[in-house]
Amino acid sequence: MSYPEHVCIKEVGPRDGLQNEKSFIPTERKIEWINTLSETGLSYIEITSFVHPKWIPALSDSYEVAVGINRKPGVTYAALVPNMKGLEKALQADVDEVSVFMSASNTHNQKNINKSIEDTLPVLQETVREAMAAGKKVRGYLSTVFGCPYEGHVPSEQVEQIALRLFDMGVYEVSLGDTVGVGNPSQVEMCLNEWANSLPFKQIALHFHDTRGMALANTLVGLKAGITTFDGALGGLGGCPYAKGASGNVATDDLVHMLNEMNVSTGVDLSKLLKSGHFIEASLNKPLRSHQMAVTRLEQNVGKE
Amino acid sequence: MSYPEHVCIKEVGPRDGLQNEKSFIPTERKIEWINTLSETGLSYIEITSFVHPKWIPALSDSYEVAVGINRKPGVTYAALVPNMKGLEKALQADVDEVSVFMSASNTHNQKNINKSIEDTLPVLQETVREAMAAGKKVRGYLSTVFGCPYEGHVPSEQVEQIALRLFDMGVYEVSLGDTVGVGNPSQVEMCLNEWANSLPFKQIALHFHDTRGMALANTLVGLKAGITTFDGALGGLGGCPYAKGASGNVATDDLVHMLNEMNVSTGVDLSKLLKSGHFIEASLNKPLRSHQMAVTRLEQNVGKE
Repeated sequence: MSYPEHVCIKEVGPRDGLQNEKSFIPTERKIEWINTLSETGLSYIEITSFVHPKWIPALSDSYEVAVGINRKPGVTYAALVPNMKGLEKALQADVDEVSVFMSASNTHNQKNINKSIEDTLPVLQETVREAMAAGKKVRGYLSTVFGCPYEGHVPSEQVEQIALRLFDMGVYEVSLGDTVGVGNPSQVEMCLNEWANSLPFKQIALHFHDTRGMALANTLVGLKAGITTFDGALGGLGGCPYAKGASGNVATDDLVHMLNEMNVSTGVDLSKLLKSGHFIEASLNKPLRSHQMAVTRLEQNVGKE
Repeated sequence: MSYPEHVCIKEVGPRDGLQNEKSFIPTERKIEWINTLSETGLSYIEITSFVHPKWIPALSDSYEVAVGINRKPGVTYAALVPNMKGLEKALQADVDEVSVFMSASNTHNQKNINKSIEDTLPVLQETVREAMAAGKKVRGYLSTVFGCPYEGHVPSEQVEQIALRLFDMGVYEVSLGDTVGVGNPSQVEMCLNEWANSLPFKQIALHFHDTRGMALANTLVGLKAGITTFDGALGGLGGCPYAKGASGNVATDDLVHMLNEMNVSTGVDLSKLLKSGHFIEASLNKPLRSHQMAVTRLEQNVGKE
């Protein structure tokens, strides 16, 4: 196998992670956490989501977070926006980039954003156009790419078609999400083979959830296929509130650790990342699930004996 | 990538798992657990270890377990033996197979079995000879193959040389163990490439610990290299009491799930395996760490809502 020399890790913990946590992290703690993330070497942090607070109360302070953090030069601070209303707020807060999202399966799309896929596309199109008119780059998320909690199998052609529609709108990157963590390495390999000629892999990110423990194995397959952008949430935070069984994003720290060990550079300082993990762990008042966080706790306890 | 059509999973939970648990599982519960494992389709179960009870009190009832279980036809019931004394007891209990063990790094070997590598080899040689004279097949475990908690890097040539010595003694299979869970996919691939011409891969098993979350990714690399035997412990039980940070074998259930999804047959019924996991989980009175066990608990709770 050959692997890329460098990959870009996009930290989605403050958004995809916290949106699925029951406890509300005080705004000041969120800001402080994101400020520690900015010091780890990460070049991209998705800091919040400008959705209606009724949908995701955990992120109801998105504006305050976006204007409260230190903007470190060289780091891109992005936010999720579902539509024009969200975009307006994101522009008011002057985030660096926005992300739009939809699902590759119709039922999940309907349950998640209350619209069919066909009805969602024009909403995203308008949002992308306005964002770009305001000088912002736009990323597109496609969910349930390797399986839907309601429909099961999602045809790879369907994923391809919607991803191409997103590129046509002007998004610079599509993040393909295994929202419920059901994709297996053979499947991921087969899909990537099918997409190799139709999708521009330098503009494709992979977004794995580790529900069934296969996220790092799937990452390996992605690396081998030439994908160089991967999403993660520090400590394995996150999930999807509408997808039963989805218990968290792949842990950024486990991802960075594996890549470091494989001599694939990420630019991320693992020890700083783990310190940032301990900060949010203390705020959440529960242990984070990642292996690196567990190993660190164990080493600290051993040291105390 | 191409993968084998069938792989053999060797369940080491009753030995490698339980030996590192603080609570003593009553003999009757162990026997009942192993009996449930026998009904899952597993063809090989390492049921206990005939070491001095002072070393591993959790397995002090090895004889009672070995003679108490139902021996299902077609299932091999194996036990670990450190030396002639252990072998004698294992032969008294008439287990189907025995396993001998040593480390690929001298310091770990010294700390684990109180002898240098060179002084261990004659002990194992005598044990293997006597076991074979008694009509038993012998498996060899080699620990710290991808890294040592005391020495760090372990040269792949050293692993190769000791593995060949074990084969020379007459063992039919060598299980290469990542005792502290530090091996990464690039390293495993590089080592397997180096060993491809010197070690008989059909007689090599891989034994991963998931301390840093890389066990399934490493398994993928092993499959690709043509390895067809993998060790696991149900629910992710286990570890190594002498290796700081080693928090458990790769979970057999996660391994079987991934292989099933990849259409690599294992002969193991996942739902029966998970039921067996719930049995030992109840006996240990703590949640097992595996992803499959967590997903099952979640689904059961969701069902109750």
